[in-house]
Amino acid sequence: MQAVYNIAEICARHGITDVVLSPGSRSAPLTLAFARHPDLNVRVVPDERAAAFIGLGIAQAQRRAVALVCTSGTAGLNYAPAVAEAFFQQIPLVIFTADRPPEWIDQLDGQTIRQRNLYGAHAKCEFEFPVDTSHADAKWHSARIVNEAINLAQAAPAGPVQVNVPLREPFYPKAGEGIGYEKDVKIVHEYASNATLSPAEILELHQQLRAAGHVLVVAGQQPNNPGLLAALYEFAKARKVAVVGDIIANVGEVAAVQRQDIFLAGLGKDDKAALKPDLLITFGQSLISKSLKLFLRDAAPAQHWHLQAAGEAADTFRSLTRVVRVAPAVFFQQLSVLKTSEGERSEGSNPSFFANNQLASGSGSVGSTEYATWQRADAAAAEFLKFFFVDDTQPFNEFSAFRHTLATLPEQVALHLANSMAVRYANILGIPQGRQIEVFANRGTSGIDGCNSTAVGAALAQPGRPVVLLTGDVAFFYDRNAFWHNYPLPNLRVVLFNNHGGGIFRIIDGPRQQPELDEFFETRQLLTAENTAKDFNLRYFPVSSFAELEAALPVFFAAETGAAILEVFTDSKTNAAFFEEYRSAVKQAFS
Amino acid sequence: MQAVYNIAEICARHGITDVVLSPGSRSAPLTLAFARHPDLNVRVVPDERAAAFIGLGIAQAQRRAVALVCTSGTAGLNYAPAVAEAFFQQIPLVIFTADRPPEWIDQLDGQTIRQRNLYGAHAKCEFEFPVDTSHADAKWHSARIVNEAINLAQAAPAGPVQVNVPLREPFYPKAGEGIGYEKDVKIVHEYASNATLSPAEILELHQQLRAAGHVLVVAGQQPNNPGLLAALYEFAKARKVAVVGDIIANVGEVAAVQRQDIFLAGLGKDDKAALKPDLLITFGQSLISKSLKLFLRDAAPAQHWHLQAAGEAADTFRSLTRVVRVAPAVFFQQLSVLKTSEGERSEGSNPSFFANNQLASGSGSVGSTEYATWQRADAAAAEFLKFFFVDDTQPFNEFSAFRHTLATLPEQVALHLANSMAVRYANILGIPQGRQIEVFANRGTSGIDGCNSTAVGAALAQPGRPVVLLTGDVAFFYDRNAFWHNYPLPNLRVVLFNNHGGGIFRIIDGPRQQPELDEFFETRQLLTAENTAKDFNLRYFPVSSFAELEAALPVFFAAETGAAILEVFTDSKTNAAFFEEYRSAVKQAFS
Repeated sequence: MQAVYNIAEICARHGITDVVLSPGSRSAPLTLAFARHPDLNVRVVPDERAAAFIGLGIAQAQRRAVALVCTSGTAGLNYAPAVAEAFFQQIPLVIFTADRPPEWIDQLDGQTIRQRNLYGAHAKCEFEFPVDTSHADAKWHSARIVNEAINLAQAAPAGPVQVNVPLREPFYPKAGEGIGYEKDVKIVHEYASNATLSPAEILELHQQLRAAGHVLVVAGQQPNNPGLLAALYEFAKARKVAVVGDIIANVGEVAAVQRQDIFLAGLGKDDKAALKPDLLITFGQSLISKSLKLFLRDAAPAQHWHLQAAGEAADTFRSLTRVVRVAPAVFFQQLSVLKTSEGERSEGSNPSFFANNQLASGSGSVGSTEYATWQRADAAAAEFLKFFFVDDTQPFNEFSAFRHTLATLPEQVALHLANSMAVRYANILGIPQGRQIEVFANRGTSGIDGCNSTAVGAALAQPGRPVVLLTGDVAFFYDRNAFWHNYPLPNLRVVLFNNHGGGIFRIIDGPRQQPELDEFFETRQLLTAENTAKDFNLRYFPVSSFAELEAALPVFFAAETGAAILEVFTDSKTNAAFFEEYRSAVKQAFS
Repeated sequence: MQAVYNIAEICARHGITDVVLSPGSRSAPLTLAFARHPDLNVRVVPDERAAAFIGLGIAQAQRRAVALVCTSGTAGLNYAPAVAEAFFQQIPLVIFTADRPPEWIDQLDGQTIRQRNLYGAHAKCEFEFPVDTSHADAKWHSARIVNEAINLAQAAPAGPVQVNVPLREPFYPKAGEGIGYEKDVKIVHEYASNATLSPAEILELHQQLRAAGHVLVVAGQQPNNPGLLAALYEFAKARKVAVVGDIIANVGEVAAVQRQDIFLAGLGKDDKAALKPDLLITFGQSLISKSLKLFLRDAAPAQHWHLQAAGEAADTFRSLTRVVRVAPAVFFQQLSVLKTSEGERSEGSNPSFFANNQLASGSGSVGSTEYATWQRADAAAAEFLKFFFVDDTQPFNEFSAFRHTLATLPEQVALHLANSMAVRYANILGIPQGRQIEVFANRGTSGIDGCNSTAVGAALAQPGRPVVLLTGDVAFFYDRNAFWHNYPLPNLRVVLFNNHGGGIFRIIDGPRQQPELDEFFETRQLLTAENTAKDFNLRYFPVSSFAELEAALPVFFAAETGAAILEVFTDSKTNAAFFEEYRSAVKQAFS
């Protein structure tokens, strides 16, 4: 088993610190290897679906690979939803699935399935650990593929990798017998290169940028990246280019335009025409805003450049003309230092991105008319929001409650937004500026299946940082096993907007006109979180009115409160009616 | 969407009656098609993992295909554990996964993953529904593959089949607009053939049987099959052959040997040698009993015939020499009617298999010595059990509580045994004879992930039959979402043996000698079912002593009690100590 024990050593030497493990018998040698390693923090989570999303949450927070360990059989299949999310959200997971040795596959033994390529198209690669490492070549092979797996998981675009580990009995050392790690185990470190544009390329892109007419930058999902923010700020300032930031793009502090979900839903055809870019520059992953996506698809810019150092590039708006193979920060840095026709060379000062949104605040200082148009639209949307939510005379509803909650978020929160309405409400309302809030959402696959667990992983990985999950009832109850383990979560707060069903189906067009709405789409569910809170020792704050919500929020978010659920009860029909009011008001305000 | 609506019609015309659906937007046309079909019973279950196992439970009970319907994205991946179980347990599931159209895959749209061949090696086939059915060929194609999928799912060996259905907007008919089913939709019925042995083959097998020496029949997992039982009874009686029945083989009423897990664990090498067969005949799927598996692998019979009409045959005991491609019932029928050297032609009477175990009861009427040896061992094991459990002076423990529970099972129960200890305890103790109890367990993959849901599916499918699930706490809490839907389960009883962790790890050798036992193997969990019972309106009976258990059982099993959980609290260390006592006693009694 030495080669198996060495897996833990190789992981540790690659800088992996966290392991999420689910109990099993076949996986025992892996369990022992990881549990006994002095440099690894191993947590045990029995439900593998939750375990994998918790691992994803940890990896997302730590920005490095997390190892998952499970036993043979369907254990590994329960990882599949998180593996797909990790694949599309580009989060590195190194998955060790214990297996029977190959000769016992399909022989009717227990917990035996076909584990080769278990995740199909949703893992970057699958490696088969040698079943017998007595030959020197096999031992070299065993260590080599663990190195390859870890390096591959972390290479851009990062993602999940499976290492299938067939194990023959005996699984356990004798009582009292120790297990060791070979300190001279093979380690292959991979250093990522940083691609840059050549002077000739910079010149060409610069000339094209200058000739392009109306340039628009749109940022999709990505983690907070101060270096990118600085470069993007300089680029946008120097070229007077509007930057549209989706809430999950974490560019709120430099994006002049953040309320696109509001005004693009309201503006008429002619007004929209004035916003259409000639050159669209995008980076990051997906967008929440359907209005923005539809606008850009309809806009059909002459050019669309997508900035992505590696991996397949998506043609999200059907207008892709160029993929620029550098990190977005490199592009913006290299393209902002040149003198442009519209403005002066930027001063190169490094602004405080979490303090003052200088681009968005200056209302008369802009050069290009398109930039001003976008800014005006955004400002109008901000005004609209203030006007629309002027007081709380409306019946208690989810959208308004969501707004109150966002407004009271503590500083430096890791904000997790569950699919499906939570992330949409937040994208409309925007998050408060200046509080250094980082936004996370499982928008790789947009599933509701692991939102709790991902937030739990984030809370475990950053005990000193508040983690707030805003979620609906279907996503919350789907993934209750996120809390089924023995690790305290003092920094986690869950705000559960419970409308007793899939409220989104009453809001989107289509299902709400169907007689099947109640039973087959919204699907009423009767649970409240009261018993779940009891089961998992979470403090519980139920509220059903604005007054109760306002009273609860400060106590709920107080650091000393500890792990807690704030359950906001609303009525699905009231929510739908109020959201309809919002939509009508948007149409009226912007048409 | 007509071709999509027709899917429901084709399913209904193939005799599918039950559909389990999870809410979604992309899947709306499928939802409407199934929900509105007058001949289909559609149930909505939000957690797809539970939904798929509920579908599996229904299909298992009804012995025909169930349709599953989910939306795009990770929804379908949550089906994967149940799909693997269905594949290895040979249960027909027709899985309709809604998808984005192919041009939008990998383009950063929400709920979009790579759904082609989503279940990899664990589905019999995947079909891609045409995205555009305006061409007549495409329409023919669309109907043809739905027929093919249903036929393939149900063809032996049955299993899961995926139909991926890419759908373009709009998904919904206009408000008030109806949807129709084409009554002349293409239907291709498949009629299964019944393979039989030719007279020459019968003669050859008969001669080999006569020449083989000691013949032993071992039955693995299969559903109750009266025709097979009748033929097996005749065969065993005519040839004086011992039949060893695993508890999940549902042959308890005709198998002379059922307590093999006890005596094979106790007998010494010499005694075991007397039991070794020269010719082993097997049928069915997996075995629970590890003692039996190890014995047969060690026995290395000169011949091993496995009876299986179709599909890959497993070499479970490393001694396979012949695969006989007929249904086991056909084999036993065709091979029992010939006059044998040891006995007379059987009378052909059809005994009442659920009334009297004639083979097992007659103690002096047997011919072959090996048969007598097996029977004596079984009788000794039965005596041992009575002696060992003579009174309840031992501390309250799981194994004893399990025995009490089994003894009071109502008649005609569909008994569901969860992995991992529940099914093992039951296999040791045996189920009460003469009560027409049918046994189910997810032994295709032996996962703990869907035991509740499978039992829930069984209860939904057979409202007039009591369904009893015996389970441990890890399996139970893992799959609580089995109850998260709006369908009452008046005929379901869950007996939950709660030892607050994976008690099996304290019982099996290996982990219990390791310092990691508590944290990383057994993994203590603190939940009780009290709050779960409240959440889902299940009556709740907590017991912690023999007296409380005895008092609760009759009320709990009474038909008028309705859906209920009987939670049996035991201490993991006491359980392990008592089971160790049992093992020592077995060794003493049989060595």
